[in-house]
Amino acid sequence: MATNLRINGERLWSTLMETAAFGATPKGGIRRLALSDEDRMVRDWFRAACERLGLEVSVDGIGNMFATRAGTDPSARAIAFGSHLDTQPAGGKFDGILGVLAGLEVMATLADAGYETAHPLTLVNWTNEEGARFAPAMMCSGVYAGELDAAPMMAGVDRDGRSFSGELERIGYRGREPVGERRFAAFVELHIEQGPILEMEQKTIGVVTGGQGLLWFDGTITGRDSHAGTTPMPLRRDAMAALAEVALAIEGIARAHGPAGVGTMGEAHVLPGSRNTIPGGATFKAEFRHPDGAELTAMEAELAARVAAIAAQRGVTIDVRRIWRKDPITFDAAVVDAVRGAAAKSGFPSREMISGAGHDAFYVAGTCPTGMIFIPCWEGISHNEEESATEGDCSAGAQVLLDAVLTLDSRAA
Amino acid sequence: MATNLRINGERLWSTLMETAAFGATPKGGIRRLALSDEDRMVRDWFRAACERLGLEVSVDGIGNMFATRAGTDPSARAIAFGSHLDTQPAGGKFDGILGVLAGLEVMATLADAGYETAHPLTLVNWTNEEGARFAPAMMCSGVYAGELDAAPMMAGVDRDGRSFSGELERIGYRGREPVGERRFAAFVELHIEQGPILEMEQKTIGVVTGGQGLLWFDGTITGRDSHAGTTPMPLRRDAMAALAEVALAIEGIARAHGPAGVGTMGEAHVLPGSRNTIPGGATFKAEFRHPDGAELTAMEAELAARVAAIAAQRGVTIDVRRIWRKDPITFDAAVVDAVRGAAAKSGFPSREMISGAGHDAFYVAGTCPTGMIFIPCWEGISHNEEESATEGDCSAGAQVLLDAVLTLDSRAA
Repeated sequence: MATNLRINGERLWSTLMETAAFGATPKGGIRRLALSDEDRMVRDWFRAACERLGLEVSVDGIGNMFATRAGTDPSARAIAFGSHLDTQPAGGKFDGILGVLAGLEVMATLADAGYETAHPLTLVNWTNEEGARFAPAMMCSGVYAGELDAAPMMAGVDRDGRSFSGELERIGYRGREPVGERRFAAFVELHIEQGPILEMEQKTIGVVTGGQGLLWFDGTITGRDSHAGTTPMPLRRDAMAALAEVALAIEGIARAHGPAGVGTMGEAHVLPGSRNTIPGGATFKAEFRHPDGAELTAMEAELAARVAAIAAQRGVTIDVRRIWRKDPITFDAAVVDAVRGAAAKSGFPSREMISGAGHDAFYVAGTCPTGMIFIPCWEGISHNEEESATEGDCSAGAQVLLDAVLTLDSRAA
Repeated sequence: MATNLRINGERLWSTLMETAAFGATPKGGIRRLALSDEDRMVRDWFRAACERLGLEVSVDGIGNMFATRAGTDPSARAIAFGSHLDTQPAGGKFDGILGVLAGLEVMATLADAGYETAHPLTLVNWTNEEGARFAPAMMCSGVYAGELDAAPMMAGVDRDGRSFSGELERIGYRGREPVGERRFAAFVELHIEQGPILEMEQKTIGVVTGGQGLLWFDGTITGRDSHAGTTPMPLRRDAMAALAEVALAIEGIARAHGPAGVGTMGEAHVLPGSRNTIPGGATFKAEFRHPDGAELTAMEAELAARVAAIAAQRGVTIDVRRIWRKDPITFDAAVVDAVRGAAAKSGFPSREMISGAGHDAFYVAGTCPTGMIFIPCWEGISHNEEESATEGDCSAGAQVLLDAVLTLDSRAA
């Protein structure tokens, strides 16, 4: 086990900056929607870079790219790592991209050293993680894992009416490999945190132990429109005031289930929407997240009780409908342990944490032992052209990825 | 002084129902926007009805219609009454219309009895009270009173680009009388309450002593967009939660200044408006009303203090900008007294009250002694096709209007 291999942080940074040209925006971000011309360009670049390192590149039927370095054990399944190269419409230079290009740096470091692993190693670029052009997010790792059906995904259309399958053909990335046929010994994904915790606590590495469970709900409040000047306060059935109480109830319940619990009312509409009419209607979209499924269940029950009290007290009806529940994910203990050990080996300050956002690794975790590595990003900002991470932190993340992969290789062999 | 004249409630009801055909909607309401063909039709009907009663009809340069019955005192100014015949886009059969047609019934009753007043009596139809097609509301009583300039009103356009002046010409109601030249000895307006108080207290007549003062403000909240899954509750700068607290502060301040104070957040927008993004922005439009100007000033100061505290506590900025303040109106004591006495004379249960809504009488009050009479409407609903008032209450209102006018005539003569 080669404990002294060091990745080349400058080379990693230069590939991050070089590929940022594919879809570069004036504000320093990237617009590289899945299956766009920009996506094709970065894929072509990625394929060529992999082939220069002697990796064997295969593409599956939904565009996922697999670049494999042979191992010494012909019977071993590959240890895999990677993320995604597509971005949000006004995305940054690190979300997803770091995980793929750090994987490329791992491959280059091993090639430079002539280091041989027992397992094959496979670097993955998952198609359409963002879901910004074609819904849903994490689409093609979901199809790979068998949790989403391929047919409706292929039939999906963007807002201009162009189909996913047509665009996949057009950019030349509809591969012959059957989707999901290839299975791995383990999967590790490096990603920016997309939250503020590591930066705030001055930690370099987040050892990700799992993903939050999630509850989405839609709400409708029905009161009565009435004249803002002539209706005394006690006689009002004000949907705006009820909405305000529901928003604060969501926040209060999340705080009561803190520090891990979060709750957000991200969307709200007030009807009819006139300054001098007491609103008779409101709709909202909200969510709770928590790493513990039982806590999530309790949060939902508490909201139902609060909502019933608000409705009764205000003489309005409030309909809250759960539209999605996703149970929490716990990553594989051995993979988490390998990440923890790799951070410690380099002396990087680290902390265990739960992923607040969704990632391809969540779907892959259903098919093999999986884990994730986080590094800090500036002020926790992501899905934004201002998204930023330092060269030092990117380099640290790639080093931890390398060492975690080598640990998994040595343990499993 | 003829104390035993009785208006004809059935005749009044039949004119209400007859004219409701001009712009009738399938749901039983009226759509009769100012200067529309429907407005022309009801004006033509009204002019003919006045002329049949021997009234002299004059139209001023902005379309206000004056129908005058001569008095015995050639030096006396007219005692006037009336309201408006235009409606909201989905309006009811009583808002405004009752005041004009009850005035017509007063004229008919006097004609039937051959009763002569000392003062001339003038029945008025004010143009464009609703402001729904051409802003602002109470436009042409405002121009009459000299509180709004005629030129910008005439130049105003509807959403189809048609100008007020062009439409006024088109329907044939741009009169030759200079606007505001005619002044009155007094003005009385009968109107539905447009609020729930009279119905709730089972009173037939509202003796209106004045109009509320009003404060309009626009607000902008700036926090920070961030990821709903990855941003811990204590690190959020959530504009939706801040908006909720501001809405409840407005409500709480109004209640603390109750029962007369009211406060409403009628419009709110949350940005960017995505379920899993913590809103970084919000805008709102809100108002306070109170019959006491000092209370209104105090409410504004209390809101400023609450808003500053919310902003500081949440790490957001909240900009609240006052865009309009209208001081309370106190109606003329003699006119109020005439209304009170008229209600008592017929034995109608009555109460003094403040008008929550704005009315043409508010502007006219700046030019002559003015007062208003309210009658109940069903569940306080107005600006709605379901707006409803009973034949008995309409009849009572017209009777009080007649008796108040005769009282004013006898006192002043």
